[in-house]
Amino acid sequence: MNEPNYYTVFLIAISLMLITARLLGELFVKLKQPAIIGEIIGGIILGPSLLGNLFPDVYKYIFPDDVHFRTAFDGLTYLAVIMMLIISGLEINLNLVLRQKKSAFFTSTIGMAMPFIAGFFISYWFHGIFFSDPAEDKIIFALFLGTAISISSLPVIARILMDMNLIRTNLGSTVIAAAIINDLLGWAFFSVILGMMGTSHGGGMPVLQQVTVIIVFLAVMLIGFRNIIEKILVYLQNNLTFPGAILTFIFTLGFLSAAFTEWIGIHAIFGAFIAGVAIGDTPVLREKTRDQINQFVTNIFAPLFFISIGLKVDFVSHFDIVIVAVILGIALIGKVLGAMIGARFGGFKTSDAAVIGFGMSSSGTMGIILGLLALQAGIINEEIFVALVIMALVTSIISAPLMSYFLGHAEKGEKFPGNLDDKSLFITEFTQKSELLEFLCSAAAAKSGADKSLILSEVLKREELIPTGIANGLAIPHAKIRIRKPVTIMAVNREPVDFEAPDGLPANVIVMLLTPEDKPELQLNYLSDIVKKFRSSGTVNELLRLDNKDKILSFLNSDGAGL
Amino acid sequence: MNEPNYYTVFLIAISLMLITARLLGELFVKLKQPAIIGEIIGGIILGPSLLGNLFPDVYKYIFPDDVHFRTAFDGLTYLAVIMMLIISGLEINLNLVLRQKKSAFFTSTIGMAMPFIAGFFISYWFHGIFFSDPAEDKIIFALFLGTAISISSLPVIARILMDMNLIRTNLGSTVIAAAIINDLLGWAFFSVILGMMGTSHGGGMPVLQQVTVIIVFLAVMLIGFRNIIEKILVYLQNNLTFPGAILTFIFTLGFLSAAFTEWIGIHAIFGAFIAGVAIGDTPVLREKTRDQINQFVTNIFAPLFFISIGLKVDFVSHFDIVIVAVILGIALIGKVLGAMIGARFGGFKTSDAAVIGFGMSSSGTMGIILGLLALQAGIINEEIFVALVIMALVTSIISAPLMSYFLGHAEKGEKFPGNLDDKSLFITEFTQKSELLEFLCSAAAAKSGADKSLILSEVLKREELIPTGIANGLAIPHAKIRIRKPVTIMAVNREPVDFEAPDGLPANVIVMLLTPEDKPELQLNYLSDIVKKFRSSGTVNELLRLDNKDKILSFLNSDGAGL
Repeated sequence: MNEPNYYTVFLIAISLMLITARLLGELFVKLKQPAIIGEIIGGIILGPSLLGNLFPDVYKYIFPDDVHFRTAFDGLTYLAVIMMLIISGLEINLNLVLRQKKSAFFTSTIGMAMPFIAGFFISYWFHGIFFSDPAEDKIIFALFLGTAISISSLPVIARILMDMNLIRTNLGSTVIAAAIINDLLGWAFFSVILGMMGTSHGGGMPVLQQVTVIIVFLAVMLIGFRNIIEKILVYLQNNLTFPGAILTFIFTLGFLSAAFTEWIGIHAIFGAFIAGVAIGDTPVLREKTRDQINQFVTNIFAPLFFISIGLKVDFVSHFDIVIVAVILGIALIGKVLGAMIGARFGGFKTSDAAVIGFGMSSSGTMGIILGLLALQAGIINEEIFVALVIMALVTSIISAPLMSYFLGHAEKGEKFPGNLDDKSLFITEFTQKSELLEFLCSAAAAKSGADKSLILSEVLKREELIPTGIANGLAIPHAKIRIRKPVTIMAVNREPVDFEAPDGLPANVIVMLLTPEDKPELQLNYLSDIVKKFRSSGTVNELLRLDNKDKILSFLNSDGAGL
Repeated sequence: MNEPNYYTVFLIAISLMLITARLLGELFVKLKQPAIIGEIIGGIILGPSLLGNLFPDVYKYIFPDDVHFRTAFDGLTYLAVIMMLIISGLEINLNLVLRQKKSAFFTSTIGMAMPFIAGFFISYWFHGIFFSDPAEDKIIFALFLGTAISISSLPVIARILMDMNLIRTNLGSTVIAAAIINDLLGWAFFSVILGMMGTSHGGGMPVLQQVTVIIVFLAVMLIGFRNIIEKILVYLQNNLTFPGAILTFIFTLGFLSAAFTEWIGIHAIFGAFIAGVAIGDTPVLREKTRDQINQFVTNIFAPLFFISIGLKVDFVSHFDIVIVAVILGIALIGKVLGAMIGARFGGFKTSDAAVIGFGMSSSGTMGIILGLLALQAGIINEEIFVALVIMALVTSIISAPLMSYFLGHAEKGEKFPGNLDDKSLFITEFTQKSELLEFLCSAAAAKSGADKSLILSEVLKREELIPTGIANGLAIPHAKIRIRKPVTIMAVNREPVDFEAPDGLPANVIVMLLTPEDKPELQLNYLSDIVKKFRSSGTVNELLRLDNKDKILSFLNSDGAGL
C-alpha cells in the first residue's frame, strides 16, 4: 500500500482483464464453444497484438513497463495458474481410469504416441522449419514439441463432454480416463525435459535421477499419501470449521507440493496438479467444497491467467504461417488418428472411435501452459509459442462440432416426454435406490414385455459401472436390452435418492431408459433429449410441486421445461 | 515464472501464513472467540516480533528482504484487503438501518462521539504521551486517533452476535445497524483526513472539495447506482453463466470503484467497501453467490491479510505500555459508555443498553486497517500502531463475555424440547408461510388459552420487522404476549417454506415461541436453547426422515441433536 498510483493501475488492469475475459468467454459459450477460447482471444485483443499496436499509449498506461507492476502482476498470474492446476487435479478421478482401463489405455497410449513420434521426428529432422539458426539442443526441442503436441487438455475435454451430455456415457468415460493418463504422462515427461535442460545447462540432476524422483513423488502422493489425506480430511470436516479448514488444507497442500517440485527441479505446476489429484481422489471431499473452490478459481483466477497469455507475446508479428500449419497438421492428424486407432483397439466401433478421436484432440489449457513454460525456459521461441496457442484454440474449437457429426442422429423428432403415459409415469416416495430401481424395472417389464430380472440386472450393471445421476436432481438409469422399441419410465419421487450425480445433488426425478440392443445409437439420442428437458435447475422442483400425473405430463409437454 | 527461487519462497510463505492463521483461528474459535484474533496473533508469531527475534535466519528465509518477493507479496495482501472490504460491504443491509433508525441513530452517533471527542482532545492536549518530538500536524493526528478509536468493526460484531444467537433479535439488529452507520461515517471521515494530509503536503484537493466529492460518490453509488446495479444483476443472472458472471461483476465493480476512490485521493479501500454495500444491498443477489464469495475470501484472503499485519511491525520492541493503556482506556470507556447512553436514548432498558455498549465496543478489523493505512501514510508511528492493534484485539476479546454477563440467565435448565408433547408437535405439509403460521397460532392458542388472533398479529408483526428464518432449515417465529408460561409449538413441515434465513435455505422445521410479556429476558434464553439443538446442518434432514411424533421427540431428547 505504498505507491497509490501503481496500485490504481493494478486494479484497473485486473478489472479490464476480468471484464474482457467474461464478455468474450460468454460470447463463445453462446456460440457453443468452451469459454477459455474466448478468454485467450480476449488476451490477444488486450495485449500487444491488438491494443498495443492500435493504441500504444492506452496499452502502456494499463500494463506499464514498471518493475513493481510487472512483479505484482506476474506474482498474481503465477498464483492463478497454480490454483488452476490444483483444481484441474481435483477433477481427476483415478478410479474412473481403473474402471475403463483397457479402452482408456489404448486410446491414450496410441493417441499420444502417434503425435509424439510425428512431432519429435519432424522437428528433429526438419529443424530448419522452426529455427533459422541451429538451436542449442535439437533433442530437447524435439522432445518438447512432441510432448506439447501430444498432450490433451482434461479441463477443456471435460467441459465439451458435459456440454454434449456425453460425460456419463461409456464413450465419455473412456475419453476422460484416457485424457487423465495423457495428462499425467505428459506432465511427467515435460518435467523430465526440464530436468534434462537443467543438466545441459550445468545445474539440476541427471535425467535418471530426475525420473526416479518423479516416480517416487508420484507414488508417495498418489498411493502413500492418499490414506493420510483422507484421514486428515475426515478429521477437518468433523472437527474444524467447514468448509474453511478444507479450503486451507487444499491450498496449502497444493502450494507446498508445488514449492517442493519446484525445489527438486520439476516445475511447481506439476506439484500443484498432483496434489490436486491426490486430494480430489479421496471420496470424502464433499461436492459443495469442490464447487466453492471451482467457482472462485474458474471465474476469477483462470480468466486472469488465460488473458495473461495474450499479453506475453505479439501474436501478429510472431505469426508464422508455415510453423502454424506444420504444428496444427501434426496435432490434428496425429492426435485424432492415434486416439481413433487406440479406441478401435479398445473395442469401440469405427464411428464411435472417430468421436473419441476428436474428443481427445483438444490440447487447450495444458498445451498452452506447457508452451508458456517452454517459452520462459528458452526451449521455444515466440513463433512456436504463437503456433502452439493457435493449435490449442483450433483443436478445441473443432472438437465438439466434429464429435456431433460422427455421433450422427439416427432418429429425428422429440423423444421425451414422447409416449410417456399413465402406465409409465409415477409419483413415488421411495427412500432406497434399490427399491426404486426395482419398481421402475417392474413397470418397464410390464410395458415392454421383457423379463423383469433381466432388465434389473442390466440396469444395475450399468449403475455399478458409472452411477447415472446427471445433475439438478435428475437421474437416468439406463440399459440396452433385447426389445424392439425404446421404453422410458419416469418417477417423480418425493424423497431424494442419491444417484451420485457430479453436482452432488440427490435425485428426485428418475427416468429409466431402455433402448434396443441392436440400435446402440438410439441410447445417446434419447439420453440427450431427456437431459435437455432438465437443463434448468428449477425443473425438478417444479415437478415436485405438481400433485397429479396430468399436471406433470402437461408441464413436460409445455415450453416451460427445458428453458 | 522467471525466477523459480523467489516463487518457491513465495509459495512457502503463503502456505505457512495460511496454516498458522487456520490453526490459531480455530483455536480461538474453540475458545469462543472470533477467529480473526487468532489470525492476528498468528501474524505476530510468524513476524519480526517472535520468529524474527528467536530464529532470524528462518524468518529471513521465509520472508526475504528481496524487492521481488516484497512487491509480489504486497500486491497480494493489497488485493486481499480490497476483496475483504468488498465482502464486508456486501454484508451491509441498509434497509436494516432504516428499520432500526431511532435506536441505531442514537447508539451510533453518541457511541462514536464520546470516544472521538475523548480521543481527539487527549491526543491534542497530551501530545507528549504519544510523541516525544512535536509532530508535524497535531490536528490531523488528533482527528485520526479520534476516528480510529471510535470506529467499530462490523465483521467482528456480526460474527459475535451470530455466535451468541443474537443477530436476529431486536437488540442484535440495533447493534448491527449502529455499526453500519459507524463504519460509513468512520471511513468517510478517515478519507477526509487523508485528503487533509494531501493538502498539507501540497497535493490533493482542499478539504471542502474532498468532502463534496465523498458525498457525491456516496450518493451516486448508494442511491443513483443501486437501480442500475440491480438491473445488471438481474440481467446477468438470467442471461449469462451463473454464478460466474456475478462473481466477475462484483469484483470488477469493486476493483474499479477502489481505483476511482484512490484516484480522487480517498483510499481505495473506501471505494471497495462502498461498491460492496451498493451491490449487497440489492435484493436480487442470491445467498448462494454471497456464500461462495464469502467462503473463499474469508478463508484464503482475509487470513493472509490478518497474518500480514503481524509481519509489518515488531510488536515487542514497539510496545509502549503508556500508549497502550491510554488508547485502550479511551476506547473502552468512551465506546462502551457512549453506545450505552445512546441505546438508553434509543429506548432500551439499562441492562440491554449495557449489552449493546459492549457489543459496539469491538473495533477489530476496521480499527486495524485504519491503523495500517495511517502508519503507511505517516500519521502515526509504530508504537501507536501496536497500541491500536492491541486495542482491536482486547475490545474484540472482551465483547462477547461481557455481553453474556449483562444478558443474564434468568432461568436455568434446558428449555427445549422441554415440555413438547403430542399437542405441541406436528408433522405438517404446508406450502404457504401464512397458512403454516396460522396453524401454529391455533395450536398455541389451544395450549396457552390466549386469543388466537392476538397471537397471530403479534407473530406477524415480529415477522415483518425481521424474518425469523435462522439457518440450516430452522425458523423460529416468536412473540411476547400476555401469558404466564412460555409456549413452544413445533412443526416438522415436509414442504420447504421460505423464512428468509441468512443462509438462504427455506425452513422445514418451524418452532413457534411465545414468551410472557412481563418476562422479556426469557425470550433470548429460549431462543438460544432452540437454536442450539439445530447447530448441526443435518438435524433438520434427520427430523424429516422420521415418520412419527414419538421418533421425533426421542430424537430431540437424545444426544444426537445439537452435536
